[in-house]
Amino acid sequence: MLKDVQGQEDQRHIPLKHVGIKGLRWPVLLKDPHKGVQPSVAVVSLAVNLPHEQRGTHMSRFVESLKSMGPIHPHDLEKVLDELKEKLEARKAMIDLEFPYFIEKKAPVTGNTGYLDVSCHYHAEKEETFQLDVGVDVPIHTLCPCSKEISKYGAHNQRAFARMIIRSHKTVWIEEMVAIAEASASSPIYSLLKRPDEKFVTEEAYENPRFVEDAAREIALRLNEDSRIDWYRVTVESEESIHNHNAFACVEKGE
Amino acid sequence: MLKDVQGQEDQRHIPLKHVGIKGLRWPVLLKDPHKGVQPSVAVVSLAVNLPHEQRGTHMSRFVESLKSMGPIHPHDLEKVLDELKEKLEARKAMIDLEFPYFIEKKAPVTGNTGYLDVSCHYHAEKEETFQLDVGVDVPIHTLCPCSKEISKYGAHNQRAFARMIIRSHKTVWIEEMVAIAEASASSPIYSLLKRPDEKFVTEEAYENPRFVEDAAREIALRLNEDSRIDWYRVTVESEESIHNHNAFACVEKGE
Amino acid sequence: MLKDVQGQEDQRHIPLKHVGIKGLRWPVLLKDPHKGVQPSVAVVSLAVNLPHEQRGTHMSRFVESLKSMGPIHPHDLEKVLDELKEKLEARKAMIDLEFPYFIEKKAPVTGNTGYLDVSCHYHAEKEETFQLDVGVDVPIHTLCPCSKEISKYGAHNQRAFARMIIRSHKTVWIEEMVAIAEASASSPIYSLLKRPDEKFVTEEAYENPRFVEDAAREIALRLNEDSRIDWYRVTVESEESIHNHNAFACVEKGE
Amino acid sequence: MLKDVQGQEDQRHIPLKHVGIKGLRWPVLLKDPHKGVQPSVAVVSLAVNLPHEQRGTHMSRFVESLKSMGPIHPHDLEKVLDELKEKLEARKAMIDLEFPYFIEKKAPVTGNTGYLDVSCHYHAEKEETFQLDVGVDVPIHTLCPCSKEISKYGAHNQRAFARMIIRSHKTVWIEEMVAIAEASASSPIYSLLKRPDEKFVTEEAYENPRFVEDAAREIALRLNEDSRIDWYRVTVESEESIHNHNAFACVEKGE
Repeated sequence: MLKDVQGQEDQRHIPLKHVGIKGLRWPVLLKDPHKGVQPSVAVVSLAVNLPHEQRGTHMSRFVESLKSMGPIHPHDLEKVLDELKEKLEARKAMIDLEFPYFIEKKAPVTGNTGYLDVSCHYHAEKEETFQLDVGVDVPIHTLCPCSKEISKYGAHNQRAFARMIIRSHKTVWIEEMVAIAEASASSPIYSLLKRPDEKFVTEEAYENPRFVEDAAREIALRLNEDSRIDWYRVTVESEESIHNHNAFACVEKGE
Repeated sequence: MLKDVQGQEDQRHIPLKHVGIKGLRWPVLLKDPHKGVQPSVAVVSLAVNLPHEQRGTHMSRFVESLKSMGPIHPHDLEKVLDELKEKLEARKAMIDLEFPYFIEKKAPVTGNTGYLDVSCHYHAEKEETFQLDVGVDVPIHTLCPCSKEISKYGAHNQRAFARMIIRSHKTVWIEEMVAIAEASASSPIYSLLKRPDEKFVTEEAYENPRFVEDAAREIALRLNEDSRIDWYRVTVESEESIHNHNAFACVEKGE
Repeated sequence: MLKDVQGQEDQRHIPLKHVGIKGLRWPVLLKDPHKGVQPSVAVVSLAVNLPHEQRGTHMSRFVESLKSMGPIHPHDLEKVLDELKEKLEARKAMIDLEFPYFIEKKAPVTGNTGYLDVSCHYHAEKEETFQLDVGVDVPIHTLCPCSKEISKYGAHNQRAFARMIIRSHKTVWIEEMVAIAEASASSPIYSLLKRPDEKFVTEEAYENPRFVEDAAREIALRLNEDSRIDWYRVTVESEESIHNHNAFACVEKGE
Repeated sequence: MLKDVQGQEDQRHIPLKHVGIKGLRWPVLLKDPHKGVQPSVAVVSLAVNLPHEQRGTHMSRFVESLKSMGPIHPHDLEKVLDELKEKLEARKAMIDLEFPYFIEKKAPVTGNTGYLDVSCHYHAEKEETFQLDVGVDVPIHTLCPCSKEISKYGAHNQRAFARMIIRSHKTVWIEEMVAIAEASASSPIYSLLKRPDEKFVTEEAYENPRFVEDAAREIALRLNEDSRIDWYRVTVESEESIHNHNAFACVEKGE
């Protein structure tokens, strides 16, 4: 019988907030409102708290837990955390998943379809109560209102990201968050555009100039109207095309 | 006279927590207790809050502010924030600097010197009061106590990082934080080791096995004894050599 | 009818080697010798040459081409390139796919299964003849022969990567390349190990010390014996655990 | 006396192309035509070949070599390689340095100065003859000619990078390469622009639309005229603002 070194008593009287694994790539199936499920690849962290008297946790159990996970619906992560708490005899458990998610989108004029890739993450914790943050980084297009106003013609524009994190008591689908980000931008962006689509997107953006400040506020307005959402933090970050650095604006519910 | 679009009144009634720039690379001079100053390259964010009635901030002023900065001592960042608040008529200001910092270290036996590169960051905010987080990611060496205990010979070991963030009311030098991390590891690591040094490091690590849990607690014990330090969060993350994922342990003062 | 600006005649007399798209994330299905297909997420580049007299290429056609791709078997990429050449009236075409691939592995003693994640890429080009490079970055474990030899006990060891690129006239599966890398290492690595497995891996590594030089040569020996393989380049890079930098050794067939 | 394991005879009859270190961060001083020297932080690789009969190289000597390096002028890297060859008794040596380099630039109207950060690399090899590649990734601005032509107003534009690698028999300064990239773009980009500058840049870009194909060819034209330059490869990659992927064009002397 091999000795359980992790199970030894610890004399340092220091409880640990989180002990676990990080940076594990794993294939996942995500619940998708249209197709049922969507496969992706996640980078996963899993952790529990560790009471002061215990020397170490049993790291392999986190991977076992992941192995037994079925298709992921964010609000079902509570069960995963309950299992982790039981398996590792912990008071608190945490899971963090980062993954790309693909949304099929139609080009605005020709209707050609392509994928929009959205970097997403779920972060869930449970001690007494379950808390879930759903995050999406939606690629959007912003056109500078100042540049448009002061210039004879043209206006600088760029790829930007609406980084949204929400807490909700009912499911808010990734698709819904993306729709809010896109409605708040100068224009959505697409993987596949033919010439009539490019004309449309160019003109739409020019007609809807948005600072990062504008886009952040437009998103906040829409999130404020959604009664499912209890808290959010939104950071719009634009890869300024006349600079080699980014501009950003952050708005947080309740601040 | 070009119109000030950013200065327009905003009707959406949404105040913004942060508005600013991100991801700007900039040459910096850092205060160094031994050499006076040390040059490095930082990635910088600067931001202020934006009241609900103002449409946008004047992003170029952040870069002007950076241009006028002299050698950086972390506790002097308060002056930079005071200036930003004044220049941008803001209630709150924030600065974030990430940079590599080099510490000259002697190899343990031969005394040959080389650099240890430490990823550092300063994050400072001021509304009424000045708050400063100093972060260092110290590369260390950890050797697994379980692997040592259960195996006939050998023990898996690996590069790990002690990611420490502290708040202190008196200066704690990066060098001091690094010393604490190294004393808590199985062994420090070095850029330049000759054979007698390699023998020393190998044996020292074998004699001092540490889980990430152990290393985190050892660091916490040392930080607890330092009366300058008001708060800390320490995450030790080891790049487990028998896995392609990491193990981590996190301890936070007051949790 | 919108003007075809890309189709204009170019007067600069400069032919372009590659014109195309880069950094497109896309869901893919990969041929898998055990399960038939395996879903993953790829980062894709697609390009063609551009003759000196043509101003630009039609970028949207690359995405259309990708949309029509079925499950990916590397040697079938020739058809994709033939299509691209036709669609874009080009003499040469290129495709590059980077993706994680998962291999189910049994732990050496308990037989528990987990995934090994392998970063892979396919790079294919065709002008007259089809050329395909298959690349895998296999995470392995290396233990230092020098450290073992000179130390009373222990030996530093670490996560390493066997980065292999091969050209073959017959299919060599990713699984086969991984097996070669693992046989050449101090030990394979795993996502899920229980205590008896950890003991086994620790002792196996100690019994099989390997410099990066050794691992690279061991892989070369095995690749030399495989008559399907026409060319290879192998770089073993180990994340030295007593340093904060890596060691590497590179061997190339025919050099 | 500790045994020299690296010095053992190897029986596998496999010569190695490169053996060395990678990913070492190190403070450097770079020759600067205006200020004499400029400090920066480099990520360094150093390697030599290894004949088939020798088991391993002595990695610590690479770091010693780096320690003794003075201010870096690219054509002086030959001396470093000669030293490495001697120190490690090798036939071939290689050095690779990646670092940010800062160029002070005046805003086009107000003349305000700020830094442009340029990612650079030097790659030098010597067997019989010395070969040096100097690479710069210059951030520039591109505005789409098609989008401008087909749209009622506006045109999508974005941050782009001119990735240039050159071989020359006489010094070509980073500043000169940057000037060529900027002259070939729709507009240069800047860290500090006031409103009159922003107006200027916006209008200039609108007046100079450039596909990645155009920018690559414009750079090639300028490089072709420079008699110091023996070979180049130029890749212009634009972070398309209406897509979440990039467009690129590559031109290589002699292809």
